Amino acid sequence: MIPYCSICWDVDKVKLLDQRRLPAEELYIETRDYHDVIEAIRTLAIRGAPAIGVAAAMGAALGALDLDTQDPGEFQSRFQIICREIAAARPTAVNLFWALDRVLLVAQEHAAESVDAIKAHLVTEAQTMLKEDDTTNRRMAQAGQVLIRDGQRVLTHCNTGALATGAYGTALGVLRAAWEAGKRFSVWVDETRPLLQGARLTTWELGKLGIPYTLIPDGAAATLMHQGKVDLVILGADRIAANGDTANKIGTYSVAVLARHHGIPFYVAAPLSTFDFSLPDGGHIPVEERDAAEVTHLWGQAVAPAGAAALNLAFDVTPNELIAGIVTEKGIMEPPFSSSLKPYRPTQG
Amino acid sequence: MIPYCSICWDVDKVKLLDQRRLPAEELYIETRDYHDVIEAIRTLAIRGAPAIGVAAAMGAALGALDLDTQDPGEFQSRFQIICREIAAARPTAVNLFWALDRVLLVAQEHAAESVDAIKAHLVTEAQTMLKEDDTTNRRMAQAGQVLIRDGQRVLTHCNTGALATGAYGTALGVLRAAWEAGKRFSVWVDETRPLLQGARLTTWELGKLGIPYTLIPDGAAATLMHQGKVDLVILGADRIAANGDTANKIGTYSVAVLARHHGIPFYVAAPLSTFDFSLPDGGHIPVEERDAAEVTHLWGQAVAPAGAAALNLAFDVTPNELIAGIVTEKGIMEPPFSSSLKPYRPTQG
Repeated sequence: MIPYCSICWDVDKVKLLDQRRLPAEELYIETRDYHDVIEAIRTLAIRGAPAIGVAAAMGAALGALDLDTQDPGEFQSRFQIICREIAAARPTAVNLFWALDRVLLVAQEHAAESVDAIKAHLVTEAQTMLKEDDTTNRRMAQAGQVLIRDGQRVLTHCNTGALATGAYGTALGVLRAAWEAGKRFSVWVDETRPLLQGARLTTWELGKLGIPYTLIPDGAAATLMHQGKVDLVILGADRIAANGDTANKIGTYSVAVLARHHGIPFYVAAPLSTFDFSLPDGGHIPVEERDAAEVTHLWGQAVAPAGAAALNLAFDVTPNELIAGIVTEKGIMEPPFSSSLKPYRPTQG
Repeated sequence: MIPYCSICWDVDKVKLLDQRRLPAEELYIETRDYHDVIEAIRTLAIRGAPAIGVAAAMGAALGALDLDTQDPGEFQSRFQIICREIAAARPTAVNLFWALDRVLLVAQEHAAESVDAIKAHLVTEAQTMLKEDDTTNRRMAQAGQVLIRDGQRVLTHCNTGALATGAYGTALGVLRAAWEAGKRFSVWVDETRPLLQGARLTTWELGKLGIPYTLIPDGAAATLMHQGKVDLVILGADRIAANGDTANKIGTYSVAVLARHHGIPFYVAAPLSTFDFSLPDGGHIPVEERDAAEVTHLWGQAVAPAGAAALNLAFDVTPNELIAGIVTEKGIMEPPFSSSLKPYRPTQG
C-alpha cells in the first residue's frame, strides 16, 4: 500500500496532502473550514479530477457541519450556497459538479430529518465517495491493465495517480495494476508544463511504486515516438463529452496528434463520473484559463521578462477520433464512443 | 538598433552577454582566456548555432594571442590543439566546426609569415566572421520576410534572434525584417523547455524590437494550431544535412509534426554555414545529450524527486518532408532540398 493519501476525512476535519510542495516536502493541510478546501482546489494543493470531486464533497460536509442553525429550511438554503461557492473553485473538471450534485441530493433526500442527522449523512456520503473512488479506480485499473504488455515503453502526461484521485489512480492506476500483476515495463513521464505535475508528482508516485520511469520535457515526446521508443500512451481526463471528446491537462491534445502521426495507440482512463453526457461534444467544455504568472514564473522566480504576455490554458480538448479507447470502471470503451457509452448515459428525466 | 550584442571583440578580449542570466540580468563576460570561451559555449552562456561559430573563431583568436612562441611550426601545432579543444565544447551545431576549419585555414594560408602576423590575421578573421554573420543574417531576413503577411500569427521555438547569432538573427531576423518593412503580426513564443530559451530570450528580444508576442508552454502549441490561431511556423537550425533534414532544439520535430497535421507551413531559417553537406541525411547528425539536471532542476531548485531519472536530448531531427522551405542568405530553398541546395554544395576536392 502506498503510504500517502491525497485526501481523507479525519473525525471532524479534512486532511489533504499539499501537492504544491511535492516532491520537496510531504505536508498535509488539516482544516475544519470549507473555505480552505476551496482555496486548496483553486490553488492546486489538491488536483486531479476524481480527487477534486472527493474534496468538493468533503468541503461541502465541512461547510454543513459549520452551519449554526437547527432550521431545516435555512440549513438547506445555506448549504446550497456553500455548494455553489465550492463549484466556482475550478471550471473544467466535471467531477466537481458531479460530487456537489450528489451531496445536494443527499441533503434533499433527508430533508425531513433533523439538521444534525443531515449533517451526519453528508459526512458519511463524502467518506463513501472516497471509498467508491478507490473501488472504481481499482475496477478501472483491472479493466485497463490488459492493455499493458511486458517490455512496453508507456508514455503518460500530467499526474493521474493516487494523488489525483481518492486513492488508487486512473491512468497511473492502470499501470499500477499491470505492475502488481507482474508485468514489467517502463514509463516516459512528460514533465507537463507549466505546473510540472509529471515532473513533481508522477515521478514521485512511480518511485514509490517501484515502476521504472524517465522524465522528459514535453517537447521530447515526439522524438521518442519517432525513434520507436513509445509503444502506448495512457493518460487521464478532466471532462469527457458524450461523443468521447476529452478535456485534459494542456499538452494532451499535442500528445494525441503525435501518437496518431506515429501510429501509437492513445488511451484515456477515467471513471464514469468524468463523463458529461449533457455536452454533445468537446466544443462545449469550458476550458479554464489560469493566471499567466504560472507560465512566466516558477516558485516565485521569473522565467520571462517583467510584463511578458503569456497564455495559460489549463486544459485542451482531444477529439474522439484520436482516442483508441477510454478505460472506465465498466471496461474499455471503444470507438464510436457515442455507441459504446450509450448504456451509461443517465436516462433523461 | 538593438542595444545589446551576443558577442564582440574588444581590442584584445572577447566580450559576451551571459545568456544564462537573462532576462533577470544583462551581464557581460569579458575574457582574454579561450578556456572561458569554451566554458561559455559548453554552459550556454552563449548559444545559438551562428553565435557559437563566431565565439569559436574569437576563442581561437584568444588562444592564438596567448601562445608564447615565435616558432611558426610550434605555433601551428599548438593552435591546432586549441581548435580541437574548442571543437569539443558542443557536438551538434556544425557552425562550430565550420568556424574552426576557417580559422585553421587562415593560419595555414599565412604560415610563411611571422607568428605575430598570423595572430593578427586570426583576430581579423574572427571579427570578419562576426561582420559576415550580420550581413548574412540581414540577407536571409530580407529573403525570408516575404513569407510574413500582415495579421499573421507566427509560432517560433527556442531563440534565433541577435542573441543566437553574431548580430541580427535567423528566424527572428526574418520576423524583424518583416516588422521593419512595416508588416504587423504577432508571435507565439514556445517557452522551449528545458532551458527556456523562448521564455527567457525570445520574449526579451521581441520586447526590445516592439513585436507583440505571447509566451506559451510547449504543450500548448498544438491547441492553438487546432484553434486556427497559428498561420506559420518559423524557427532556426543547428545543423542541416544534404537532404534538408534539420537538427534543431528539442521540441522542433514536435512542432513540425503538429504543423503538418494542421496544414500550417513550417519554415527553417539558417545561413549556409549551418549546412553539413558531408552528411547525406539527419540520421547522421550527432545529437547532444546534456545533463539530466537541466530537466530535473531549475536554477538549482529541484522540480523532480531526488534521484529522478530524466533524459535531456538537446536537439531533435526534423525530416525534410515536414519542411516547407529553408530560408538562407541565397533565398528560400524549396523541396526537394537535395536539388535546391545543389548549387551551394562545396565542390568535392
